[in-house]
Amino acid sequence: MSTSSNQYDKRGVSAGKEEVHAAVKNLDKGLYPKAFSRIYPDYLCGDKDFCNLMSSDGTGTKSILAYMYWKETGDLSVWRNIAVDVLVMNLDDLLCVGATGPFLYTSIINRNKHLIPGEVIAAIIEGAQSFIDEMSKFGIEIKYMGGETADLGDTVRTTTIDGSMTARMKREDLIITSEIKPGDVIVGLSSSGKATYENEYNSGIGSNGLTSARHDILNKSYLNKYPESFDPSTAHSVLYIGSKKLQDKLEETPLDYGKALLSPTKTYSPVIKVMLEEMKEDIHSLVHCTGGGQTKVLHFIDELKIIKDNLLPTPPLFQAIQRESGTSWQEMYKVFNMGQRMEVYLPESKAEQLIAIAGRFDIEAQVIGRVESSKIKEVEIISSHGTFKYQ
Amino acid sequence: MSTSSNQYDKRGVSAGKEEVHAAVKNLDKGLYPKAFSRIYPDYLCGDKDFCNLMSSDGTGTKSILAYMYWKETGDLSVWRNIAVDVLVMNLDDLLCVGATGPFLYTSIINRNKHLIPGEVIAAIIEGAQSFIDEMSKFGIEIKYMGGETADLGDTVRTTTIDGSMTARMKREDLIITSEIKPGDVIVGLSSSGKATYENEYNSGIGSNGLTSARHDILNKSYLNKYPESFDPSTAHSVLYIGSKKLQDKLEETPLDYGKALLSPTKTYSPVIKVMLEEMKEDIHSLVHCTGGGQTKVLHFIDELKIIKDNLLPTPPLFQAIQRESGTSWQEMYKVFNMGQRMEVYLPESKAEQLIAIAGRFDIEAQVIGRVESSKIKEVEIISSHGTFKYQ
Repeated sequence: MSTSSNQYDKRGVSAGKEEVHAAVKNLDKGLYPKAFSRIYPDYLCGDKDFCNLMSSDGTGTKSILAYMYWKETGDLSVWRNIAVDVLVMNLDDLLCVGATGPFLYTSIINRNKHLIPGEVIAAIIEGAQSFIDEMSKFGIEIKYMGGETADLGDTVRTTTIDGSMTARMKREDLIITSEIKPGDVIVGLSSSGKATYENEYNSGIGSNGLTSARHDILNKSYLNKYPESFDPSTAHSVLYIGSKKLQDKLEETPLDYGKALLSPTKTYSPVIKVMLEEMKEDIHSLVHCTGGGQTKVLHFIDELKIIKDNLLPTPPLFQAIQRESGTSWQEMYKVFNMGQRMEVYLPESKAEQLIAIAGRFDIEAQVIGRVESSKIKEVEIISSHGTFKYQ
Repeated sequence: MSTSSNQYDKRGVSAGKEEVHAAVKNLDKGLYPKAFSRIYPDYLCGDKDFCNLMSSDGTGTKSILAYMYWKETGDLSVWRNIAVDVLVMNLDDLLCVGATGPFLYTSIINRNKHLIPGEVIAAIIEGAQSFIDEMSKFGIEIKYMGGETADLGDTVRTTTIDGSMTARMKREDLIITSEIKPGDVIVGLSSSGKATYENEYNSGIGSNGLTSARHDILNKSYLNKYPESFDPSTAHSVLYIGSKKLQDKLEETPLDYGKALLSPTKTYSPVIKVMLEEMKEDIHSLVHCTGGGQTKVLHFIDELKIIKDNLLPTPPLFQAIQRESGTSWQEMYKVFNMGQRMEVYLPESKAEQLIAIAGRFDIEAQVIGRVESSKIKEVEIISSHGTFKYQ
């Protein structure tokens, strides 16, 4: 069964969030409305050469997968990894405007106390602190300023985990996405594999598209086993319609499906910090391919055509999601990162140097496409799965 | 039926959060572990005379009441007021260490898209901006740095709304709760009534104890009408066991029960800003009586006895909650603010001056108690409802 927007609606998710964009359109968008993250004057210190940034994001329904896998196996590490997802979804967004810290961080956990015991909360907090300690070795300083845990069983079926991050930086160090130029190439950084600062193979999944992935991959047995894992008003015809179990092995990887879906979102902060130190003046833009997948860049450009004709090989998990769900490849590229979750826009002559920096961290990278001028904004993907256009 | 800790357990809430405290005990608690909010070095600007603060908090299950009242009446103002709850729960916490801004603010809304349409999101965001604009008139500068809205219908039955606030201030302006001294008096600031900067009568409810209040006041008809308003695994014997409907009039107030339960948490920021400007050197401590109600101060003291023998008259809503639920008064004072949600600890000779400042904003205030030395820490409440001790 192919995943259509109808299925999205039934499951209560949206790839595009147009409705919400309309609701926020009147808010102050800051100094550079087209920047990847919102940039504001230095309210905290009042220095006109500086600016303030604040990000907030969460792990979405990935926490439901963590809950289910932990219930099945008792493995608390999935909760430590969920904490990384929340941190990285904030951190890597701020990286895209050139922020490299220090960052202030706070977490918000809303749990159902009947189902989520103190040891899970402890694992989440320990996982956050552990990641923060690891990043410190690379000069990425994140200060954990405490957080909030609330017992909201009447609102939350299992648990939500969100975080907020604040930064301050020199305006001259900002990267503004409007600097993308015709003639630029795009270097894609692999989301899968094992970076030098990771402990194990990463499926590349990130934290987007997890509602679809869960229901499209896992089989019907989970419907009765975990009624707390879905909205009971959703039609059963779109719930748990796959063929797999969490502990089925994912071919071509050392992981099972559960662990693959729960790979902690890979941060690019150590490698981007070095890129900014060694070649910032050459970098025109950074795009974190989260919601919207390979079409994310459309939010930040005008009158440019982005051609992606040399994407990294599709990692096994995304192939499995497509196979299990029958989702069109056109749709897949719009929901998932499909193997590259960070892109760098820069002159072609500088690509090799950038790719070599990624290589120091065992992060595969290559020129995945280029930028041309255009009357409208669009993205064109030319892949082994077909050619797809997005506007 | 009296509300016992057994009922709390069944409903999945806890007044004390001991389990969670255990989970976070290893985190860095900042420069002053006994301060009301956590205080850290000035990571963002590196100035040793300054410090950084970050708060995160949410509206808890009050959002469920907003959802139900809006469904019944179509009144979107309850959503604008919910946004105020989130802001104030953060703002008034930071006020307690002497922070008066500027503040950076971000919101996180996790909604069930089937039930919460874009117009509700818009109302929440508009409500936040409207409150921010109002506070600006009093010199309380809050900068809305954008936020996150996620569609999490599989996790969230209706909606959660959280927020995070960052501030920076001079260390010499800090108020550290450890300055409370034997001989100090306590001035309580009324949570109910109508301050000069409010639009209508406020029941005084704040954002704590709302799960209990909802189930203890509202009648069984809501069980079938709104299955999305509670955890289905909870015993029906503790759900919606009151006698009231949302639109029943609350005696002695101009509100119905729904609006009374949804009174936006009253901020004390305009009045505390003036208190700090005119008499900061006299203020030994500020305590925001949220979780833990009138016993909140126990978290911040050692070897002191807090005697509260002249509390403000119990506002009608709290009387109604007690009457409907049969909860012991001992318990009521531990869950709800019972009429005063901010306390100021200072020498007796300065109380009159402080009370007069509150009066300029039409906020009722009086000396509600005093501090004595003690071998242990305890709170004693001597009221018309009885005498109660807490440790």
